[in-house]
Amino acid sequence: MSLLVLKFGGTSVGDVERIKNAAAKVEAEVRKGHKVAVVVSAMAGVTDQLIGYCRAISPHHDPREHDAVASTGEQVTAGLMAMALQQRGLNARSWQGWQVPLRTDSSYSKARIVDINVVAFRKRIEDGEVGVMAGFQGIANDGSITTLGRGGSDTSAVALAIALKADRCDIYTDVDGVYTTDPRIDNKASKIPHISYEEMLEMASRGAKVLQTRSVEMAMRYHMPIQVLSTFANAVGSELPGTLVTDGDTTMEENLVTGIAYTRDQARVTLAKVADQPGVAAAIFGPLARAGINVDMIVQTASDDGKTTDITFTISKNDIDRTKQTLEGERARIKYDHVTASGGVVKISLIGGGMRSHTGVAATMFETLAEKKINIQAIETSEIVLGVLIAEEYTELALRALHTAYGLDAK
Amino acid sequence: MSLLVLKFGGTSVGDVERIKNAAAKVEAEVRKGHKVAVVVSAMAGVTDQLIGYCRAISPHHDPREHDAVASTGEQVTAGLMAMALQQRGLNARSWQGWQVPLRTDSSYSKARIVDINVVAFRKRIEDGEVGVMAGFQGIANDGSITTLGRGGSDTSAVALAIALKADRCDIYTDVDGVYTTDPRIDNKASKIPHISYEEMLEMASRGAKVLQTRSVEMAMRYHMPIQVLSTFANAVGSELPGTLVTDGDTTMEENLVTGIAYTRDQARVTLAKVADQPGVAAAIFGPLARAGINVDMIVQTASDDGKTTDITFTISKNDIDRTKQTLEGERARIKYDHVTASGGVVKISLIGGGMRSHTGVAATMFETLAEKKINIQAIETSEIVLGVLIAEEYTELALRALHTAYGLDAK
Repeated sequence: MSLLVLKFGGTSVGDVERIKNAAAKVEAEVRKGHKVAVVVSAMAGVTDQLIGYCRAISPHHDPREHDAVASTGEQVTAGLMAMALQQRGLNARSWQGWQVPLRTDSSYSKARIVDINVVAFRKRIEDGEVGVMAGFQGIANDGSITTLGRGGSDTSAVALAIALKADRCDIYTDVDGVYTTDPRIDNKASKIPHISYEEMLEMASRGAKVLQTRSVEMAMRYHMPIQVLSTFANAVGSELPGTLVTDGDTTMEENLVTGIAYTRDQARVTLAKVADQPGVAAAIFGPLARAGINVDMIVQTASDDGKTTDITFTISKNDIDRTKQTLEGERARIKYDHVTASGGVVKISLIGGGMRSHTGVAATMFETLAEKKINIQAIETSEIVLGVLIAEEYTELALRALHTAYGLDAK
Repeated sequence: MSLLVLKFGGTSVGDVERIKNAAAKVEAEVRKGHKVAVVVSAMAGVTDQLIGYCRAISPHHDPREHDAVASTGEQVTAGLMAMALQQRGLNARSWQGWQVPLRTDSSYSKARIVDINVVAFRKRIEDGEVGVMAGFQGIANDGSITTLGRGGSDTSAVALAIALKADRCDIYTDVDGVYTTDPRIDNKASKIPHISYEEMLEMASRGAKVLQTRSVEMAMRYHMPIQVLSTFANAVGSELPGTLVTDGDTTMEENLVTGIAYTRDQARVTLAKVADQPGVAAAIFGPLARAGINVDMIVQTASDDGKTTDITFTISKNDIDRTKQTLEGERARIKYDHVTASGGVVKISLIGGGMRSHTGVAATMFETLAEKKINIQAIETSEIVLGVLIAEEYTELALRALHTAYGLDAK
């Protein structure tokens, strides 16, 4: 017998019939003898509608009131889910964030969880009741309702699992796991049965949208196993049909490359002939950070004259104009010849814990891309990641070629 | 300077534009120097949609969960109203029932208010903030969300006004006051500038749907003045443009008849030749009450033989079958010859505090109806009410004739 937290996302509870279907999953786990807590998102589209109302009232609305409004979607689903479970003959009750309570700081719309007091909640679960907690929401010290930010229900679920010392947190969604790459691009993509927290974090932050990064970080810190699985398939979580995210060292052997992610809509900025002297990086990237511009890959090359250097970095395509303005404003301090910026690039990232102990990963990548005549515009490496910047038009070609080259194609 | 509670019903906050319009009313009162608390209903249609979800999950759903779901409509409007007020430059914040707190018993979906602790709420209002309370909802002793039943936001508003010792509770709605009769039937109906609690209660319980009966009873008990007025007219409440509901003795002279209400879809039931002996009324109406059947007018007439009597009473048309079944089941105990029941009748009620001190009110009614050849099927009188049962097809004719006869026609 395990204690499981089951989290159902917006499409999994998108209408009354889907809520009933999700309740059947919960019942199946209870009938197998597990103790179960459930965390629910708002019905798909509801939160967007609520935020739309807020924007229509005022573009610069009070974040406290925004959260009071935006949190109602999860409140509705929690009540309906409890009813659907009761309808199947289970004991169940809904819990709002403030009822548990799930305490947060007062950073409305992006609140951080401070503490979950699960004494009352756990007592009822141990007595055989299914506790249904509304995801996404909490309560601040002054009694105001807070929300955890978009996708915050994943974080709610992992935090509840940790507080309850649950055996696993199952994230039910509309895909049946994490894939080696985007199946919409490469139909040979296959489901990854097991992935480490570190790999999952890199996959998520580099374009795979299955799990919220923050929830993975939290699970990693507390060693809480997460499973990503489909609400619309037949199996339930305790049969482990999805992708299990756990500590990396739980498997004996790791793949060289676990998955390939990509980030579109990148732009490449080059500052030509920057004076090659100490403090120049701070002079460039300090002002950009203060302007709220997210800088990703950074590459520095020596120029011909030996006294200056070219600095290239990537940003989101939407930040091109602001980046140019910021750099123009700093021209006197940075001292550069000219700046060029262009969109139309994509970052392809190979992710795999096995890179730590293997050499030759990069060579395979370069050969594969060269064979397809794809030019590499920048390279980035870390312990478990190898990223390259290429022209966006080659995205599909590169992704499929690399997927094959690293032996990831489904059998 | 007064302390005012302004309540906005579902049509008054039916969409974002209407919420902004209602916020303008609030601002106008604040600019006149008043301290203001606001109580809001859900946007029109939202509560019905939420209850629809509950019914779709399960026809016999848990009332605790029903209330968790149904209370979200008011939560949304409270947040949006606070934003709309801030947008106009006012200080404002939303309060959920549990945040105030407005404490109720645990009778989910029809909870009774136990107590409102307004210490924190009042402090902020006195400091110049507009407090926006979500209507309809409260919190039970165990921390569960409760709701007060349909139309409960009127009751929330009056209860808040009483707790705050407000000067008046203004109920903003889609009509500009209480009318002498239904303006859709008689275009000579006119707005009543002032009506007593007793008269308003009789009007409301006899078909005028402007105010929830329960809120009027509460206002009467605590002598809280209520004003019914339109959100869509130009004037604001402190200009007293609507219908003021107060203690009857605040005006020097009362009209003979203040208004005429009507209740459609009634049915008349007659038990013929009931043994005329003590306890027979209890034998008839006890079982009907236990069956949940609401009995209204009761008329008893002696029959020819002197030993039996005919008993006639009215019920809702929808209860005809259940009434007949119940009476059949009690035939041995009641001892009657036969029972007849027919729909197609309407009850017309004259309401006026002036009836207490005037005679001749009934005579005018009988003459007026006789002149139009309308047969009276039953009569009911109380201190301030005179009600008659007539065939439903004469509703409009009778209403207009009586409205003229009692001098109520608009000048």
